[in-house]
Amino acid sequence: MNDLTDKIIAGDIRAIARGISLAESGQPEAVELLKDLYPHTGRAYLIGITGPPGGGKSTLVDKLIKIYREQKKKVGVLAVDPTSPFSGGAILGDRVRMQKHATDEGVYIRSMGSRGHLGGLALATSDAAKILDAAGYDIVIFETVGIGQSEVEVAGRVDTTVLVTVPGLGDDVQVLKAGTMEIADIFAINKADREGTERCVIELEQLLSVKEMDENTFLPPIIQTIAKDNQGTAELTGAIEKHRDYLNSGGRLAEKRKKRIQDEVHTIITNQLDKWAALRLTHDMETRENLDDIYSKKTDPYTVAGDIIKELQI
Amino acid sequence: MNDLTDKIIAGDIRAIARGISLAESGQPEAVELLKDLYPHTGRAYLIGITGPPGGGKSTLVDKLIKIYREQKKKVGVLAVDPTSPFSGGAILGDRVRMQKHATDEGVYIRSMGSRGHLGGLALATSDAAKILDAAGYDIVIFETVGIGQSEVEVAGRVDTTVLVTVPGLGDDVQVLKAGTMEIADIFAINKADREGTERCVIELEQLLSVKEMDENTFLPPIIQTIAKDNQGTAELTGAIEKHRDYLNSGGRLAEKRKKRIQDEVHTIITNQLDKWAALRLTHDMETRENLDDIYSKKTDPYTVAGDIIKELQI
Repeated sequence: MNDLTDKIIAGDIRAIARGISLAESGQPEAVELLKDLYPHTGRAYLIGITGPPGGGKSTLVDKLIKIYREQKKKVGVLAVDPTSPFSGGAILGDRVRMQKHATDEGVYIRSMGSRGHLGGLALATSDAAKILDAAGYDIVIFETVGIGQSEVEVAGRVDTTVLVTVPGLGDDVQVLKAGTMEIADIFAINKADREGTERCVIELEQLLSVKEMDENTFLPPIIQTIAKDNQGTAELTGAIEKHRDYLNSGGRLAEKRKKRIQDEVHTIITNQLDKWAALRLTHDMETRENLDDIYSKKTDPYTVAGDIIKELQI
Repeated sequence: MNDLTDKIIAGDIRAIARGISLAESGQPEAVELLKDLYPHTGRAYLIGITGPPGGGKSTLVDKLIKIYREQKKKVGVLAVDPTSPFSGGAILGDRVRMQKHATDEGVYIRSMGSRGHLGGLALATSDAAKILDAAGYDIVIFETVGIGQSEVEVAGRVDTTVLVTVPGLGDDVQVLKAGTMEIADIFAINKADREGTERCVIELEQLLSVKEMDENTFLPPIIQTIAKDNQGTAELTGAIEKHRDYLNSGGRLAEKRKKRIQDEVHTIITNQLDKWAALRLTHDMETRENLDDIYSKKTDPYTVAGDIIKELQI
């Protein structure tokens, strides 16, 4: 394992891939690897690119990679697909992108799917980011197709969150935007040559106008992009840089990362306890009988769950 | 509390509302209420209406309510909004609908928002369904705006899952559809007067053609609807009825509901343990110091989390 640690720190692509696979599998040896790598983390800047499907996030991320590569920065992309416990594979677009950058050692793209466990995907993604961080990647992008919970989860695990939307997605999305006001550091309206862009800008401005502000608040900029034509993408990386400067002043980045550490420890704990509960409910004979008794209404879910929790003496 | 139990069983609307509010708040008295009500549950049929935003789910549900009311069935609707920890209110459309049915005692519509805790929304929604079930509602509809994880969660908590999609939502959605094949009992293509409907049908058929089938498999029908014009909605309730008949034969419904009981007990346990972990991480002095030590790289998240789990002796 020490060999793998050293190779990852040296930036060896195959070692990185193996390390992330270990982290995804949730094996005990992954924990040892991550403990060893931990002192080498903290230098990468983490960016979340999130938003509803159909927003052109993959194309946008592709252009960001290009800009960061021109700045000689190494870029890691973790494409998070919360549906893949079922699809069992990479998002189609990723394979195309991976091939495109296959000859560039400064770009690492990886699809991450849910492991089916509670918090499992969040954990694996954070672990993967740490591996890339330790391997010397300057920028790690979390790209997530998400509505609601997924967006919030990603926002907790990155330094800057870019919420990507497109004009004319309908009323549901307008409502969802309200729910993402608290997590978006930057808004990108992609496909901004589409009808409804102006309305989309006005609506976002209206939402922002009710945000509670003081002189310390970062007002999320609204950037219009047409990713496929590479329009507005330099403005977007500029806005990310501005937000980074904002975080770097007044100890805000340290504060944000300390909060993240707390979230990570929390997720590791609940993930473990979730696995324990799953095992107990499927393999313990007495518990299985209790479940049958719930079905026949001899007892109820709250009583059975309460008895199991009592055993933990917390 | 016994008074509240009796009133809910008698179908008193205000008592139902109070019961659901209690369940949402996660108070210990809610647990007592739900224990009391549990023997009176099991008669309601639970339907999930889920899918990406912009699919016209609210309008579709509205038409389903109308059909079920004509059949003299009492209908409860739980509109699940996973983003509302931030928006803090009901989905706009719900208020309009609630007013529309305000004079009909046979319809109960309620918006449910996340409580911020792990599994909190799933738990509160299931509890609310039990309250409606005990109160004599024949049909309980879970309406969820969701991508990926939310859809899967809803599917685990209902008898029949209808996945609503619309033509031309873009490639991301096409991919997501693949991820939902396992959970959809019925596909509804809403806004089926739009361009791309034919392609959408063909794509779904292609996805279904690779599904592993034997004589016991229920092949999910693809229903085209134009909810706003009330087209295809009778076919949709017909398809739901067919799936219900399928579940009722060969003990499939019992099997599905037993699995659900297991999931519910699991969620109650993990929800409790999550609350415990949150408290520990925010209020225990020594743990707080450990978190600071992680930030300064004196230790790491895995070591700190591991030490806390060890205390539980599981």
